[in-house]
Amino acid sequence: MSKYEVDSLALHTDLYEINMMKTYWQSGKADQQAVFEVYFRKHPFDNGYAIFAGLERVIDYITNLSFTADDIAYLQATQDYPQEFLDYLADYQFQGTIRSMLEGEVCFANEPLMQIEGSLADCQLVETAILNIVNFQTLIATKASRVRNVCGDDTLAEFGARRAQELDAALWGARAAYIGGFDSTSNVRAGKQFGVPISGTHAHAMVQAFQNDYTAFKAYAQSHRDCVFLVDTYDTLKSGVPNAIRVAKEMGDQINFIGVRIDSGDITYLSKRIRHMLDEAGFTDAIIVASNDLDEKTILNLKMQGAKVDSWGVGTQIITAFDQAALGAVYKLCAIEDESGSLQPTMKISSSPEKTTTPGKKQVWRIMRNSDGKSEGDYVSFDYEDPRQENSIFMFHPTYTYVNKTVEDFTARPLLQTIFANGKLVYDQAPDVHAIKRYSKASLDLLWDEYKRMLNPEPYPVDLSQSLYDEKMGSIKAIKDQVKKIADK
Amino acid sequence: MSKYEVDSLALHTDLYEINMMKTYWQSGKADQQAVFEVYFRKHPFDNGYAIFAGLERVIDYITNLSFTADDIAYLQATQDYPQEFLDYLADYQFQGTIRSMLEGEVCFANEPLMQIEGSLADCQLVETAILNIVNFQTLIATKASRVRNVCGDDTLAEFGARRAQELDAALWGARAAYIGGFDSTSNVRAGKQFGVPISGTHAHAMVQAFQNDYTAFKAYAQSHRDCVFLVDTYDTLKSGVPNAIRVAKEMGDQINFIGVRIDSGDITYLSKRIRHMLDEAGFTDAIIVASNDLDEKTILNLKMQGAKVDSWGVGTQIITAFDQAALGAVYKLCAIEDESGSLQPTMKISSSPEKTTTPGKKQVWRIMRNSDGKSEGDYVSFDYEDPRQENSIFMFHPTYTYVNKTVEDFTARPLLQTIFANGKLVYDQAPDVHAIKRYSKASLDLLWDEYKRMLNPEPYPVDLSQSLYDEKMGSIKAIKDQVKKIADK
Repeated sequence: MSKYEVDSLALHTDLYEINMMKTYWQSGKADQQAVFEVYFRKHPFDNGYAIFAGLERVIDYITNLSFTADDIAYLQATQDYPQEFLDYLADYQFQGTIRSMLEGEVCFANEPLMQIEGSLADCQLVETAILNIVNFQTLIATKASRVRNVCGDDTLAEFGARRAQELDAALWGARAAYIGGFDSTSNVRAGKQFGVPISGTHAHAMVQAFQNDYTAFKAYAQSHRDCVFLVDTYDTLKSGVPNAIRVAKEMGDQINFIGVRIDSGDITYLSKRIRHMLDEAGFTDAIIVASNDLDEKTILNLKMQGAKVDSWGVGTQIITAFDQAALGAVYKLCAIEDESGSLQPTMKISSSPEKTTTPGKKQVWRIMRNSDGKSEGDYVSFDYEDPRQENSIFMFHPTYTYVNKTVEDFTARPLLQTIFANGKLVYDQAPDVHAIKRYSKASLDLLWDEYKRMLNPEPYPVDLSQSLYDEKMGSIKAIKDQVKKIADK
Repeated sequence: MSKYEVDSLALHTDLYEINMMKTYWQSGKADQQAVFEVYFRKHPFDNGYAIFAGLERVIDYITNLSFTADDIAYLQATQDYPQEFLDYLADYQFQGTIRSMLEGEVCFANEPLMQIEGSLADCQLVETAILNIVNFQTLIATKASRVRNVCGDDTLAEFGARRAQELDAALWGARAAYIGGFDSTSNVRAGKQFGVPISGTHAHAMVQAFQNDYTAFKAYAQSHRDCVFLVDTYDTLKSGVPNAIRVAKEMGDQINFIGVRIDSGDITYLSKRIRHMLDEAGFTDAIIVASNDLDEKTILNLKMQGAKVDSWGVGTQIITAFDQAALGAVYKLCAIEDESGSLQPTMKISSSPEKTTTPGKKQVWRIMRNSDGKSEGDYVSFDYEDPRQENSIFMFHPTYTYVNKTVEDFTARPLLQTIFANGKLVYDQAPDVHAIKRYSKASLDLLWDEYKRMLNPEPYPVDLSQSLYDEKMGSIKAIKDQVKKIADK
């Protein structure tokens, strides 16, 4: 067994989380209740939306969260912690409540994706791992959705494992890419773990091993029914394609000649020439697969030039979200228990306005017009507000408040659902990846096209309820007054 | 136990690898010997060099490589493989030989970092995971080295876990960053697993939880001896720093007041003001820690403006190598057994010249002048060549051959060392991360500064031996002749 076999992820956290737990514990605040929310401030890739993913992994992490004897021994050996605190950690069990969007949900900047309510100790310990998981999987699902948007009904295969940022990224990235719109992955382990369809035939090395295209394709055809031949090892048009056709003719019904793949050269030019050659040979159903550092921008350009490609293999660009390799979601305290035992909104202000948080424990509502079923925007309220009880809601931009509208005849769907209640998993009907993928497609279908454009999409409204807006403005003033008082002293 | 607990990484591979294994197996070629080499074509970040990392993880992967019953059952359920092939996989054991650079080694584009020699089946199966591991860890160690180059002796802390591309990237990225030049990580698990020093104190949330800077800092100081106070939750200069100083004075010798951290606002301006305030209060030894989306470029700019920062926290940019999130190392067949049982060089040509491979099983030599101990360049030869037997070597650019020199009075150090011999681990003295870090520093000290410049470094010579160059040119001609013959038919 690997010596890196994970026995515990309790230490998969920043040291400061445990150091804060110690301060809370020592100050008698470890059990004080608090609410933290996960959100990002800006859509990745300048996209108009994101696709939420990562919940399944978070559930597994929380369910198995406890410090092993090894973990405690490590802390004891390296940190100046008293035995009582180590004992406290050894007995630690997560008792918090987690609400979350469901995987596949279309989501937007500045609205909570997840909400963690529990003791300060609970909330702080899990921050790092939750962000680590949600940031990556949401990023990749979103990138996948962008690639899908330019590909129409073409087949999309993810094969970035070799370029992924270590093993977990290859595995969970394959899953996220499938949720966001890819059809398959090359990663066999992602197939086994999640049921993502897997695909792949052969590499250049196999052609080299057989010394020429013909012998290689023939050997492959004699050992596999479904055949996609990689035709650019030596010369695509002079050797690769003619030999693929020759083998397809020789094998006839013994194989399913799906088509050919090109991985270098000019894809538009080559694909047109190959299409012609395949058609001439009678293989009008044979497809052309293209790969070679593709992303949504290159695919769009190739399609615009009339490339005859039916299926796209995308690697590095999808599995690392190469043009923006991090989502930047944050985890911020928004409410904390006061001395009377009730939760009070709290916030942090910053000299950078976008880093100022919105106070309060919240719910996010997707507001859909009943007349056309399309979404009018998201409405972020205090968790105790319920727009379903109202006949109309007033929606206004949280900064440019004169941008506003009144919506009537609507349906409001709450996006945060309870996953863990006081430490107990209550979301026990977790869907499989195929259902999540369908859910995501349906969630995206609610959006008007203007929000889905790859370049310069319209900003989708994410508005605050009047009470939440008033709370935020009031809190900012209170903090400024307080700072002034300290400074004046 | 987590349901994602890894029982086997045998399926952590692209499906095409297993499909090729099947073709080799069915064609009687599964045991044919071959040599593949791992290399990248371009330095990441336009840097002048890279730092090799990932070997420890590769060793663990290879050591534990076998298909479990679960793995076989999955393949049986999803692929059209005959039982005999499934049995073959179930019995599979890696029997190959792996040579590799040592972790921490300075390495360059277009030279082999690792060499896998074994049966076609062995070589093909391990391709994906080896690239997945080496690509990421080498990328991060290299990025870390760049950041270190601009920081001089300042302290450098990696705290990117929350933005890493899933859990493994946070863990192994922390290790790679340490090897490349960081002093510590926030990731406690990386501390436990590898012995990387860990660091971290508290977040904004803790200040909010105590409702003001003073109470929060005081509580932290009463529960920790080493204190770095985060001073920008409400107002850095008006509240954060004055309260940090107040607590430091009140606590006196009871704490080790290391300093303060800022995470927003203008770092140059704030750090100068803070330095002044700390000095005025008598805390001339207290340090200033800065964070907030830093990388080597922002740090260089801040230092140029005279920022009074002693310690830098770097997150997203280091853990994802944000400005270039993939290394792009490839794995190419370079030699294959012929019918007589001897290895013959092989290559792949491409319409993109940089994708044309160099044939032959190789060794890489670092050529150091005895007069000053500095490196003259790397010399890539056939594995049977040994420049140590020569009094002088002729080094020439592999493309611009008129750029050349004759080196005398040199020491040649072979960079590829045997790690596995016929499946058996022979590199059993694997160093710890601290030794690897020292080794990397020493390896970097061999380079003249011109290769280490952050922007526009000189290209370091990576030359081919005359025999290797002749083999490559001869092979290109032979392939072109062969393609012409096919096309003329």
